[in-house]
Amino acid sequence: MALSGAQTQAIRKLLRTGATARVARILERHHPADAAALFTDLTPAESRLLFDALLALPRTAEVLEALPEPLLEEALRRTADDRLATVLAHQPPDDVLRLLDRLPEDRRREVLDRLPNALAEEVRRLRRYPAGSAGAIMSPRFLALSRESTVAEAVTEARRRAPELGTIFYLYITDPDGRLTGVLSLRQLLLAEPDVPLHEVMTAEPVAVEATESQERAAAVAARYNLLAVPVTEDGRLVGVITVDDVLDVLERAATEDIQKIGGTEALDEPYLRMPLLRLLRRRAGWLLVLFLGEMLTATAMSFFEQEIARAVVLALFVPLIISSGGNSGSQAATLVIRALALGEVRLADWWRVLRRELLSGLSLGTVLGCVGFLRITVWALAFDLYGPHWPLVAVTVFLALVGVVLWGTLSGSMLPLLLRRLGFDPAASSAPFVATLVDVTGLVIYFAVASITLRGTLL
Amino acid sequence: MALSGAQTQAIRKLLRTGATARVARILERHHPADAAALFTDLTPAESRLLFDALLALPRTAEVLEALPEPLLEEALRRTADDRLATVLAHQPPDDVLRLLDRLPEDRRREVLDRLPNALAEEVRRLRRYPAGSAGAIMSPRFLALSRESTVAEAVTEARRRAPELGTIFYLYITDPDGRLTGVLSLRQLLLAEPDVPLHEVMTAEPVAVEATESQERAAAVAARYNLLAVPVTEDGRLVGVITVDDVLDVLERAATEDIQKIGGTEALDEPYLRMPLLRLLRRRAGWLLVLFLGEMLTATAMSFFEQEIARAVVLALFVPLIISSGGNSGSQAATLVIRALALGEVRLADWWRVLRRELLSGLSLGTVLGCVGFLRITVWALAFDLYGPHWPLVAVTVFLALVGVVLWGTLSGSMLPLLLRRLGFDPAASSAPFVATLVDVTGLVIYFAVASITLRGTLL
Repeated sequence: MALSGAQTQAIRKLLRTGATARVARILERHHPADAAALFTDLTPAESRLLFDALLALPRTAEVLEALPEPLLEEALRRTADDRLATVLAHQPPDDVLRLLDRLPEDRRREVLDRLPNALAEEVRRLRRYPAGSAGAIMSPRFLALSRESTVAEAVTEARRRAPELGTIFYLYITDPDGRLTGVLSLRQLLLAEPDVPLHEVMTAEPVAVEATESQERAAAVAARYNLLAVPVTEDGRLVGVITVDDVLDVLERAATEDIQKIGGTEALDEPYLRMPLLRLLRRRAGWLLVLFLGEMLTATAMSFFEQEIARAVVLALFVPLIISSGGNSGSQAATLVIRALALGEVRLADWWRVLRRELLSGLSLGTVLGCVGFLRITVWALAFDLYGPHWPLVAVTVFLALVGVVLWGTLSGSMLPLLLRRLGFDPAASSAPFVATLVDVTGLVIYFAVASITLRGTLL
Repeated sequence: MALSGAQTQAIRKLLRTGATARVARILERHHPADAAALFTDLTPAESRLLFDALLALPRTAEVLEALPEPLLEEALRRTADDRLATVLAHQPPDDVLRLLDRLPEDRRREVLDRLPNALAEEVRRLRRYPAGSAGAIMSPRFLALSRESTVAEAVTEARRRAPELGTIFYLYITDPDGRLTGVLSLRQLLLAEPDVPLHEVMTAEPVAVEATESQERAAAVAARYNLLAVPVTEDGRLVGVITVDDVLDVLERAATEDIQKIGGTEALDEPYLRMPLLRLLRRRAGWLLVLFLGEMLTATAMSFFEQEIARAVVLALFVPLIISSGGNSGSQAATLVIRALALGEVRLADWWRVLRRELLSGLSLGTVLGCVGFLRITVWALAFDLYGPHWPLVAVTVFLALVGVVLWGTLSGSMLPLLLRRLGFDPAASSAPFVATLVDVTGLVIYFAVASITLRGTLL
């Protein structure tokens, strides 16, 4: 269980008095994730002391795994190559790779050379898969037997290899060429009679992903078929497995990236509070500047209508209301379509169905907002004598502009993610602020175009 | 593997010619999730025929589980109580409950009465836990033995109960009062010597959640400790387990809800394309109207400054640019903080650290945008002779307003989610559009306040 506030305070005290060995003994009784979580509450000096204590633990590698990004980098910097190789020697190759990837190229080679030969070879093979591919996060260790082996032989083999394999979820059945032909869960193995050959109890033609497919695809397969591990193949030959804990990580990371992009920032890749402020600002300033440059077009658009505004100042009053309504309805539509795309509920081929839905949605939502806007102007005009003698015309202008702008907002908001996906970009880049900016500029044009028609001869 | 386009077409043909028995035989060879996915490509008439075919399958319950929401409702409506009870009789109680919850109260009682007594009793017990609680999605079936039992006894017991238990991940060790004292993975069980008592090989003091805690908390525990199943306790007594497939569902649902709220709509609860248009519109119109009513305050704010706009129309030109910059920086900050809260990277107690970061971020980002805005006005004024003779004052006004508005945007955007959490609301409700609307109104006030100081005596 997580450490209590009192326990954390006690550990801080022990650290400051230099009793690192006692801290190590306390932490040994806690889960590595809890030991790693301790760091968030410590001063930098205490962090260093705690890290020295953790280096003495048998499960250092697991604590490293659980450390937040910036702390992990510091931890790796402070650990000598020799020591790191010793810590990693008994870890599975996919975990080793993940840590090595954080090191500069020269150190990476040094540490690799110090690892046991077989492990170093496994890690080198994994490194050949491109970042983001299923191959890059798979474990190359799995249990594979021939279809003629018996259940009893499989149990013996599972027991023999269990220490090296870590968690075992499934037993795979491969043909002499290493091609995946069947699968058996540990539970099915437990239930089967000892002398039955595996092909009689296995599930044939199991689902698998190719090593070059994306991690998101592997995660989607695991989620769809409720798998604890997804077999990874290369030209049909079984080369590894992706386990459910990695699937959870992939899904969580994907959701975080999408959410951050929808909010109009680059994906952070690190926890918000831990990220150095300058790096955080760089990630945010980029998009904000792009949006700002886009939004500058509103000033350009407005200056085209400067004469109209000078003649009918009342028009300016409703500019924020109208453009933001377009932006809001656009953000809504974009977000719904982005998430539906991510969940596989909407595919590119559905663009026409989406367009039809959003055409109807935009018209209805625009009419509702338009009516409210019309009412608002009518009531204020009658009650407070605002908006001049031509207020009915102003009300009509606002009504028509709202219908047009909201319709345009939902249409562009819903089509933009599909267009981005079609062009090979990430649909989530069509963030709420991006859509809002796009709609702001065009919304102004729609508004003043409507006004120039309805108000001609009276106000304009 | 998923059905190919050609296979889908073939099945549609068979359905239309009434060969439902053949369709059933084809689908028997596919995963229930793939059979369920078929529905999205069918016409309503074909859907009905396919459903009749599926009712003949031994795995009807699993297909039902995998059906998208509206189809599931239709499927349940078209299935008689008797037939439904037969289909559900061999399902685990948590899955049965999930399906029963979709039925109207009277049908639910009818079906429950037709289920085997033991199963009905399990379902009734689960129904007592409030929606959203860990207890409501747990399976009440688990393997629990005493600490003195041997490994061999545990294996025998696991084999005996495997058919009823479904997937077995862990074996739990309880004391005579049913209190959870230890846990053993199936893999540890496989590795241990047969005559060793469980307490010698078990992991003591396992992590658990209380049945009344939230499902999100159970999912977070599973993710943090890499658990395949989270034990659920009531006053320390083991009452059920939540397995990793349910954890995946909980995490995915939570991410979808957050994303939809951030985009400024209510959580949909159903796939976008499947949702009836009217229901979809209701979910969207609510928030859009609230935002619109809020945005109306911009018209009010603008009318306070009508005199200033009439005197200096140039001021109106930059209104969209300035308020949207505040909105965008606010959306960014809100989204980052919402996701950090959801991932547990930021807690309420961190509000001061967040405020400090956003104070610095807002000032820096505001200065950057302000400088770009200043430059833009200078260049346009010199190149195109725009913005009149007092353009340097206008440029200063826009610079100062941008710093103020962006700072205000990041501060309110970052504090609003924390405030909502503090008040017991969902932080994700402080959506990008919501923050943008809030900042639009206040941004106008900031802009015109700055202008009334800098331009006094010249333009105003």
